[in-house]
Amino acid sequence: MFHFLDIIGTMAFAMSGALTAMSKKLDPFGVFIIAFVTAVGGGTLRDVLIGRTPVGWMLDLKYVYVIFIGFVLAIIFRKKLDKLRKSLFLFDTIGLGVFTLIGLEKGLEIGLHPVICVALGTMTACFGGVIRDILCNEIPVIFRREIYATLCIVGGVLFFVLRTMNLENDVLYLLSSSIIISLRLMAVKFKWYLPAFENQ
Amino acid sequence: MFHFLDIIGTMAFAMSGALTAMSKKLDPFGVFIIAFVTAVGGGTLRDVLIGRTPVGWMLDLKYVYVIFIGFVLAIIFRKKLDKLRKSLFLFDTIGLGVFTLIGLEKGLEIGLHPVICVALGTMTACFGGVIRDILCNEIPVIFRREIYATLCIVGGVLFFVLRTMNLENDVLYLLSSSIIISLRLMAVKFKWYLPAFENQ
Amino acid sequence: MFHFLDIIGTMAFAMSGALTAMSKKLDPFGVFIIAFVTAVGGGTLRDVLIGRTPVGWMLDLKYVYVIFIGFVLAIIFRKKLDKLRKSLFLFDTIGLGVFTLIGLEKGLEIGLHPVICVALGTMTACFGGVIRDILCNEIPVIFRREIYATLCIVGGVLFFVLRTMNLENDVLYLLSSSIIISLRLMAVKFKWYLPAFENQ
Repeated sequence: MFHFLDIIGTMAFAMSGALTAMSKKLDPFGVFIIAFVTAVGGGTLRDVLIGRTPVGWMLDLKYVYVIFIGFVLAIIFRKKLDKLRKSLFLFDTIGLGVFTLIGLEKGLEIGLHPVICVALGTMTACFGGVIRDILCNEIPVIFRREIYATLCIVGGVLFFVLRTMNLENDVLYLLSSSIIISLRLMAVKFKWYLPAFENQ
Repeated sequence: MFHFLDIIGTMAFAMSGALTAMSKKLDPFGVFIIAFVTAVGGGTLRDVLIGRTPVGWMLDLKYVYVIFIGFVLAIIFRKKLDKLRKSLFLFDTIGLGVFTLIGLEKGLEIGLHPVICVALGTMTACFGGVIRDILCNEIPVIFRREIYATLCIVGGVLFFVLRTMNLENDVLYLLSSSIIISLRLMAVKFKWYLPAFENQ
Repeated sequence: MFHFLDIIGTMAFAMSGALTAMSKKLDPFGVFIIAFVTAVGGGTLRDVLIGRTPVGWMLDLKYVYVIFIGFVLAIIFRKKLDKLRKSLFLFDTIGLGVFTLIGLEKGLEIGLHPVICVALGTMTACFGGVIRDILCNEIPVIFRREIYATLCIVGGVLFFVLRTMNLENDVLYLLSSSIIISLRLMAVKFKWYLPAFENQ
């Protein structure tokens, strides 16, 4: 189940990356690379920083294929995307919740401190988008007005609170992801955001 | 032979990086760093992602010296460069072919899947330029109109086709590099390019 | 002593990163990330390139806490900063000297060549600022007019000269850092800079 959601998240991230790249008028190679880094960039950065190499997608080609399919779908349906925007947003949000937990788990596996595990979860979910924005020559959107990353941090902290309750592992992971997903849906619905700093 | 071509490629990449940096009015330190990352950035990224650390240039100072010489030459001849542009382009193209094969080989050495090996080859040949463009605050040129990376992918795939023919290793490597080099020369001569996506 | 200076440098780097980010009107998450990468980005890049993973700040949470304090202080005092600019500059310069030596030491520990050790020292001291500038969508300031990095290189070379004199280790490290710190203070006082290349 959790594994299946991982695939959905990867595809949604790849498609959103491809759409950003097409709006920047990149060529197909550029679009594919942006789709790729949006989908696996966060996890790749995490793997590199904790020394888990070769990084994940090099050992499990499933991700490469899923991203390729997402890339092709994004190209085919690029003109009909407005109708799909809601489904895409939902998949993207599922990805956010699932990737946070996956990143957090990798930190736990090698015995890192909970603070670092939460950071790894947030990095896994959010830094693909950061790398995408840097490659597209923009200041990363999550540094400016998206509450995205903050929700991953909140969800990660709640994971460690829930963990003290001796839940089953599967329940713990699904529950924590669901919290992040719900928070994100509410954040968009009720227009929660972090205020930017005014110029001095 | 192959090793000697590696040096030529490194120097050509370093010089092209230095020229880009000078056109951006960077200071000598900035020009050197851009020359450096253009020359070894792709291989460094590859080494980091597959866990081959300390990365290559830290263990073999030859590259550092070659880049330094390329940097000095680029500064000295920066005003006469128009006359040299053709030689530089040839050397740069040799680098493209040789670096692709070197990257691919590193993947084979640790038993990665052919798809990942082709990706590593392309990364080795092309991502120094990507890092150069990011440091110079531009959207990477190979994402926009250069067919550069696509040729590395084609060459990498042909390598695996040729490999099934039981050629000698040296022949296999030289032949595959030559294919990439020839494709690149033809691509520029006949103005092959990938079409960018139009705005929707 | 040396260790205490490390903390001062980390906090100064974090505060300078936070101030840059606030001037770009980022939100609090963005400001924290920029503070973080400015403070530990150079050391993180160094650790990744030499294969020292999980990277330093994941194993020693002290840095995370110091950066968080620096981030909070920068937000609280952001309007009174002009009065603090001189102290901040001094702390930042201390960080420059200390970080260079720390980076250099990591290279020595694993037996790398002095040239590479000097590069690692310079990277540790300067590349947090490079990553900060890239994330803020600017060409890195040390590539354009800051003599910053050149002083780290000079200090690193002097370290190896002094090292031949059989000084005690503590003396050697403090002396080399002090040289970098003094050079930087003089560089700013006497307006030393590297000339940029003119357009051709």
